[in-house]
Amino acid sequence: MEDTSRKAETMDILGYNGSTADELTNDRYPKKGAILVDGVVLNGPLLDAKAGEKFVEEAFPIIMEDAIKKATDVNEKVCEWQPPEELMKLLDLELRDTGEPHHQLLQHCRDVIKYSVKTGHPRFYNQLYAGMDHYSLVARFITEALNPSIYTYEVAPVFVLMEEVVLKKMRELIGWTEGDGIFSPGGSVSNMYAVNLARYKRCPDLKETGLSGSPPLAMFTSEESHYSVKKAAAFLGIGTRNVYMVKADKRGKMIPEELEKDIQKAKKEGALPFIVVATAGTTVLGAFDPLSEIADICEAHGIWFHVDASWGGGALISRKHRSLLNGIHRADSVAWNPHKMLMAGIQCCAFLLKDNTILLFNFTAIDSFRQFCKWKYVDDYKEISLSKAVFDSNCRYLADEIKKRKEFRLLMEPEYTNVCFWYIPLSLRNVPEDQDFWKKLHLVAPVIKERMMKKGSMMVGYQPHRDKVNFFRQIIISPLVSREDMDFILNEIDNLGKDL
Amino acid sequence: MEDTSRKAETMDILGYNGSTADELTNDRYPKKGAILVDGVVLNGPLLDAKAGEKFVEEAFPIIMEDAIKKATDVNEKVCEWQPPEELMKLLDLELRDTGEPHHQLLQHCRDVIKYSVKTGHPRFYNQLYAGMDHYSLVARFITEALNPSIYTYEVAPVFVLMEEVVLKKMRELIGWTEGDGIFSPGGSVSNMYAVNLARYKRCPDLKETGLSGSPPLAMFTSEESHYSVKKAAAFLGIGTRNVYMVKADKRGKMIPEELEKDIQKAKKEGALPFIVVATAGTTVLGAFDPLSEIADICEAHGIWFHVDASWGGGALISRKHRSLLNGIHRADSVAWNPHKMLMAGIQCCAFLLKDNTILLFNFTAIDSFRQFCKWKYVDDYKEISLSKAVFDSNCRYLADEIKKRKEFRLLMEPEYTNVCFWYIPLSLRNVPEDQDFWKKLHLVAPVIKERMMKKGSMMVGYQPHRDKVNFFRQIIISPLVSREDMDFILNEIDNLGKDL
Repeated sequence: MEDTSRKAETMDILGYNGSTADELTNDRYPKKGAILVDGVVLNGPLLDAKAGEKFVEEAFPIIMEDAIKKATDVNEKVCEWQPPEELMKLLDLELRDTGEPHHQLLQHCRDVIKYSVKTGHPRFYNQLYAGMDHYSLVARFITEALNPSIYTYEVAPVFVLMEEVVLKKMRELIGWTEGDGIFSPGGSVSNMYAVNLARYKRCPDLKETGLSGSPPLAMFTSEESHYSVKKAAAFLGIGTRNVYMVKADKRGKMIPEELEKDIQKAKKEGALPFIVVATAGTTVLGAFDPLSEIADICEAHGIWFHVDASWGGGALISRKHRSLLNGIHRADSVAWNPHKMLMAGIQCCAFLLKDNTILLFNFTAIDSFRQFCKWKYVDDYKEISLSKAVFDSNCRYLADEIKKRKEFRLLMEPEYTNVCFWYIPLSLRNVPEDQDFWKKLHLVAPVIKERMMKKGSMMVGYQPHRDKVNFFRQIIISPLVSREDMDFILNEIDNLGKDL
Repeated sequence: MEDTSRKAETMDILGYNGSTADELTNDRYPKKGAILVDGVVLNGPLLDAKAGEKFVEEAFPIIMEDAIKKATDVNEKVCEWQPPEELMKLLDLELRDTGEPHHQLLQHCRDVIKYSVKTGHPRFYNQLYAGMDHYSLVARFITEALNPSIYTYEVAPVFVLMEEVVLKKMRELIGWTEGDGIFSPGGSVSNMYAVNLARYKRCPDLKETGLSGSPPLAMFTSEESHYSVKKAAAFLGIGTRNVYMVKADKRGKMIPEELEKDIQKAKKEGALPFIVVATAGTTVLGAFDPLSEIADICEAHGIWFHVDASWGGGALISRKHRSLLNGIHRADSVAWNPHKMLMAGIQCCAFLLKDNTILLFNFTAIDSFRQFCKWKYVDDYKEISLSKAVFDSNCRYLADEIKKRKEFRLLMEPEYTNVCFWYIPLSLRNVPEDQDFWKKLHLVAPVIKERMMKKGSMMVGYQPHRDKVNFFRQIIISPLVSREDMDFILNEIDNLGKDL
């Protein structure tokens, strides 16, 4: 590296805004000897990195205090709710022709954090992810700073190796001794990969010819599966009407006999069955399809067996609960999102493949380091204890409390960490449970949700589901939460909904 | 928030590893009153956040020094090259059953940074992105810490508004007064969105019915377009053979008359033309298709007009160079990746749509804040000057230097910031340029590339292209580089290849 004189020659005459007016004024005058064309220095870097580095240093304490510590502090709000028009004003989102100085930008950063939902907060139970894993967060910071692309070993030597290590560990947890895999930009994309590969395996020519001359292809998934399965059928040109939505039982599990019937039906209709997408951990109820029985059927018919374990894959790290996924080793492919139960940070989604002779098509995602860093840190035993604690302590405790309290009603015993329940306000207790009762109960959860958002005390999702009126779905993920938090949720819902 | 007693009760008995053995020993004993089941505390958080917060604080100086300052210091190496087997040993990538303490993890972080390619380094010219924008980096850190999902205003109020602001600014730069858009996980996905929407617009029924009963659909793109266009045809069930690869001229631009001929041909063959994918900034040569003339043809045939400006969209911010994309406002959709020329950090890819009545399907990507933060900081004038400087100073200077020096040969005058050239070693100067000459020249760039990787002094890509043997492709993006860097590149290639 001969060019040691460079640093000394550095100028900031184009003046990315510094933090004080004085600095700015000085920066605007070019050094002696600068070659200027249209106000641009031509013999030195066009821009100095120092102001930028200073900005990162100024921003870090804000990130640490506001976005990490306060954002996970149980005594702070989960959200600082504002309606869109108000928030638009508060944030000053206008992009003007003139840039802003550091101190204003830092204030923007504070505001962005202030008005954002704190998904790492111990009272955030709204999505299929929650909590903060500081170890994966550090890995994510490093990845952002290095800004790598994972195309080849040449440009991403460390991350190419690391991806292989993490995918291998995931394959081992599935129960495969070999295979392949890739990180994808989301569970939806992983499911599409599966459909695409299954189609390629069954009809390799279609890649070139397209589907226009072929008989209809048939896909099978349960009526409780993720909407991305149908989306995949639309996107991949298969057609949503060629997705057979197999009946599920009351707990939300695919009924194998119904699958068999639907396959027979599709064949009779002249369609070519090529993939079954089973779900391990459905979105609403947290149900696990009976994988072994489905594997038997797939094997008998020679159909690709994909398991969407985006949410339920997390149970594979628990010695006690991994039996929920019994039979997963018989799948041809698996979608599993460590950003959900394993708290690796959005997005961290693996698509895993048993056959290692198929070339995978990469949309590029560099997401292994975050999971690697976590696994390097956490004992296998601890991970298992923690996951067990989440399941057996918090989930079990919450479900039992719900059953004890007259103002709550459990939809069903939780199988995973989705705890679904109704809140029954005073006015609806001890009344006949007729149509009117359910109609009124349907309106309760939305009002409580709005109140909790405005208060900022917690976030729990709700939805109707099939024949069930609106109910709360509490998702338990983070080992940073405790039984006290479970008590808090129930007490707070009662506080917020007492008068309804 | 009633639960103020919580912090005091916090325990770390499960003992995520602290940094010293003493701390660990203390952490392993639970507090008085703890309810333990199988070694798990049930009445307190299962895990303490403090150790994690400490880890982030310990890691930040390493990120700042190693991954930000050293990684962009011209006096440091661009890469510390190691073959895979060696690197595997150096990094200790094994995942064991026992977690590792902080000091070991911090060493892992240092090693990950050390052996990674420094894509922000002023001598990294290997991909279609480079440099470090500290303002977008801070935004990315905050986004990682907040870990938001952009599903709804409820869970991501700030980012939902911000996305709209950034997309609006991008649409304005395209020249649209209204429209829609979305951030996507990559330019490939954006192109697939376009193909999917164009198909939906032309044949809305196919979403439900699938393609199996339909006539073949025909797509048109130049032979210089990105490979993702053909991949889209395979993935979406259209078939690669239904992609008409329209002839390009010597500079790599689609020839409109050839497009017209191909559309006629497709119609004669019974296919349904539904989309033309033009390219603004091809990967290798940086060529811009003649958008206005292509728009005329699309209009005449009623075909969806998509512009893949993933790479070339950056020119829209330069008053002088935006004419390269004349006619882009007539497109129905545009793919534009701010992570490339606008240095927003991988991945930041926008898919923009003129029609705001079509519902977009979101794979979820939260990538607006990084671009917002940059635009808040940089003056419009400065952005324009900078981009002009990159084009007119560094690119122009490099091309002129290449023409001046007998040991280099320019493939063609650069139109964008791809500067393509051959290095002619001494042994190949003043010899007849016969088949043997080109055969030998073909071997030169790979040897020089290997040598520069092993030395770690810089990274420049090379490839053969159509009838051209291996040549270097220098990509100029970062305003942190200067004419001195351009000189350095040429001198260093000469140093490394003199003896060939």
